[in-house]
Amino acid sequence: MNGSDGVVRPVARVESSLVDRAAAPKQGDEGGPDAWLVFEPEVGAALGGLEVGDEILLLSWLDRARRDVLQVHPRGDVANPVRGVFATRSPDRPNPIGLHRVRILAIEGLRLRVGPLEALDGTPILDVKPVLGPVDER
Amino acid sequence: MNGSDGVVRPVARVESSLVDRAAAPKQGDEGGPDAWLVFEPEVGAALGGLEVGDEILLLSWLDRARRDVLQVHPRGDVANPVRGVFATRSPDRPNPIGLHRVRILAIEGLRLRVGPLEALDGTPILDVKPVLGPVDER
Repeated sequence: MNGSDGVVRPVARVESSLVDRAAAPKQGDEGGPDAWLVFEPEVGAALGGLEVGDEILLLSWLDRARRDVLQVHPRGDVANPVRGVFATRSPDRPNPIGLHRVRILAIEGLRLRVGPLEALDGTPILDVKPVLGPVDER
Repeated sequence: MNGSDGVVRPVARVESSLVDRAAAPKQGDEGGPDAWLVFEPEVGAALGGLEVGDEILLLSWLDRARRDVLQVHPRGDVANPVRGVFATRSPDRPNPIGLHRVRILAIEGLRLRVGPLEALDGTPILDVKPVLGPVDER
C-alpha cells in the first residue's frame, strides 16, 4: 500500500432500529428502515454540497461479518448452489465493505437522515459518494 | 471495530496501461481502457459464478490519493466552487475507496479482463460485487 496504511477509519456510524443481523433485510429496498448517520466532527467539511433529496451511495464496514468465507449459498438459502462471494452480495467476504444506495431525507448538522438502509445499528460508515448522472451532466 | 481489525487486504491488483493520475480519465466511461485484474490465489474460490459479459462493481483502494482532503473543486476545475468530497467522486477522501462499474470481457483462471476502467496500474482491488437486478430477480 503506497502512500497509505490500508487502515479504514469510520467517518460516521449508523443509528438504526435494526440490531439483529438475522432479522435485517438483505438489501435496503427489501424493507430496510430509515436511519440516521452520525458523522465525526472532523469530517464535517466533507458534507458540504449534499442536499435533502439527493441519492447517495454509502460504503460501510460490515463489522459483524466474517472475512474467511469465500463461498456461500446465495441469499442464505441452501437450495441455491454455492457461489463465490464476489458473485453475491453476501456480507461475509474478504473485505466486508457494504454498498448501499439511499436517499437523503433530512440534514441536521452532522446528522443525516437516510433510507431505506439495511445496515445494522452501530455499523461504521467509510464513505459517501454521489450517484453519477450521465457523462455530460457531471 | 468489533470482530474485525479494520485493515483492508487487497484481493487483486490492476494491470493497466494507465500509470499517471494526471492523464487518467475521471471515470471509466470517460475513456478508460480495458485492464486486467490479477487475483491472489487464496481468494480464487470467491470468483466462482462470475461469467464473461457480467457487469460488476469493483471497489479499489486508491493508494495514491490523499486522505486529509475534505473539500475540492469538482473535477479539478477551479471554476467550480468547492464542495465537500462526500458530494464528489474525488479520489482524495478520508477512506480513498474507488467504485468502478465494469464489464467482464474474459476470464483466464485468476485473471479477469474488464473494462472500461480508470484505475491506475497497480491499484489494489478490495472487493467485487454483482450489479443488483430488480428485487424479484435476486
